[in-house]
Amino acid sequence: MKKIDIVKIFLAKQYGNSPQNKYGEAFAPANIALCKYWGKRDTELNLPVTSSLSISLGEKGVRTRIALSDDNHDQIKLNGNIVAPDTEFARRMIDFLNLFRNKANLYFTVDTKSNIPIEAGLASSAAGFAALIQALDKLFGWQLDKKQLSILARLGSGSACRSLWQGFVKWHAGTAEDGMDSFAESLPSAWPDLCMGILTISTTPKHISSREAMQRTVATSRYYKLWPDQVENDLRNLITAIKTHNFTLLGETAEANAIAMHALALTSNPAILYSIPKTIAMIEKIWRRRASGLNIYFTQDAGPNLILLFLQQDVDKIKHEFPELEVVTL
Amino acid sequence: MKKIDIVKIFLAKQYGNSPQNKYGEAFAPANIALCKYWGKRDTELNLPVTSSLSISLGEKGVRTRIALSDDNHDQIKLNGNIVAPDTEFARRMIDFLNLFRNKANLYFTVDTKSNIPIEAGLASSAAGFAALIQALDKLFGWQLDKKQLSILARLGSGSACRSLWQGFVKWHAGTAEDGMDSFAESLPSAWPDLCMGILTISTTPKHISSREAMQRTVATSRYYKLWPDQVENDLRNLITAIKTHNFTLLGETAEANAIAMHALALTSNPAILYSIPKTIAMIEKIWRRRASGLNIYFTQDAGPNLILLFLQQDVDKIKHEFPELEVVTL
Repeated sequence: MKKIDIVKIFLAKQYGNSPQNKYGEAFAPANIALCKYWGKRDTELNLPVTSSLSISLGEKGVRTRIALSDDNHDQIKLNGNIVAPDTEFARRMIDFLNLFRNKANLYFTVDTKSNIPIEAGLASSAAGFAALIQALDKLFGWQLDKKQLSILARLGSGSACRSLWQGFVKWHAGTAEDGMDSFAESLPSAWPDLCMGILTISTTPKHISSREAMQRTVATSRYYKLWPDQVENDLRNLITAIKTHNFTLLGETAEANAIAMHALALTSNPAILYSIPKTIAMIEKIWRRRASGLNIYFTQDAGPNLILLFLQQDVDKIKHEFPELEVVTL
Repeated sequence: MKKIDIVKIFLAKQYGNSPQNKYGEAFAPANIALCKYWGKRDTELNLPVTSSLSISLGEKGVRTRIALSDDNHDQIKLNGNIVAPDTEFARRMIDFLNLFRNKANLYFTVDTKSNIPIEAGLASSAAGFAALIQALDKLFGWQLDKKQLSILARLGSGSACRSLWQGFVKWHAGTAEDGMDSFAESLPSAWPDLCMGILTISTTPKHISSREAMQRTVATSRYYKLWPDQVENDLRNLITAIKTHNFTLLGETAEANAIAMHALALTSNPAILYSIPKTIAMIEKIWRRRASGLNIYFTQDAGPNLILLFLQQDVDKIKHEFPELEVVTL
């Protein structure tokens, strides 16, 4: 099954219609998985091997405005600058737009503004595709529901399906071949005291994309076959932690899950190492501070940066210990 | 079964005899595992879950001289300095000597000289117990064979059983409950062009001993159950590489094996991380140089230091790239 087949099912009679509006605009938050998405069972449809669970980063994310273009090519802007069409960033966006380019002469101007580092493992592509699909929905006036938008966002980038909501979000792996049961949903629990902070260690684009890295892990790590077991355990613990506001359980589980993902990446062939020396220095510091009684945990996506987890009551202490930390309002 | 039972079986009628000589002295090389020993099936007898394969470090190791003492306590010297009896170093040595203290009033002076960093993951305890058991054999005049000495050295420190030979050494895991089939043997293959170098990154004693770390891995890492599968594969490849002098196969296998051991340690609870920031910086440098055509691989024991593997023909290039490297004559 191809991506375009999913699009045609959802749009049905609307497929081929011209935009109803002059433009569409939407914001989507970045999301940080507390239980990671690592490994696809279908690379075309971005169907995951396991479910995953994330928290969205409030106002940290991507705002996208899309309109029709009078030129015979797409024009893609990122933070005010035109992006060359042969870049990875533009290529992935154009591939995605191709799914909705119902007439050969339909081209777009896409104006994307991100307040998170691009391609440094901070889920910028997740926010990007989640914003883009919602902007497209508004431009065309499809009025798709959130479940459908989650599935379509997934076609752009797997974890994008989680960026349609704030708060805690669970992406159900699903089992269907067409992925119609593989979408994200908002979890009802709120946890106002929970805080996150971005410890930006490097904004250099990562040397290997998460999509390539997870493929290599699935294909070459003998330990990957036990990842679903880890996820099942961690999801259960995270959901308990969220329901009962058990911060220690949340932190321990999220940190162990991230470490396991990176350990699996290391056991791939060739080995994949996202941590740089400063990442290790920061992990050592977090562990030292925790040993001294500071209630702090980390998670790490496919890049060198760390996301810290802590409680509102400790925010001043945390800021004092990590002055470079950007605290995110969730 | 207790350690003392093994000692009594080997010494038989000799057990209880007085020393035949004034002193015993022996040297044992440190050894670096190309396929790691990680995990015990019996913590009393240091019986391993899997076999392992090492190369000895030539003149890098420990020289030990042991004699009877007139005092009513042991006196242990390390590199000329008396070691306090309540240190980990002295405690482990005294525990080992207790096995051979056939009369209550028998005490020893042990003079140990090491030219490798102690407790920094460079197999100093392996060389230490291998030298000590051979020195004891000479002091008492037991004339035990190498297989027996390998088994007795193992009672002091698992990997010590591999430090009784130079060159390539395989430690057979064995299956017997008393560990009589768990000993090391020299592999006949020589490889004069193979070189190793020690990249000492830190000589600070490690924060967690390898014996504690491997126990925690066995007890808490869900991925450990696949380690025997990794070892089986890696031993096969290493033995092929050694027989055919296939350096790429040797290097790739040894590096992947070390990375997997450290990845498993990371997935323990709590996580175990032996790499420090400079370790990561050096791994990045090794990988960059290899990507540029330099034929170099690393392995890493339970500590922050790296051991580099390369061929004689590249020694000048390697020394130029890693001026801090201490090249070992194997």
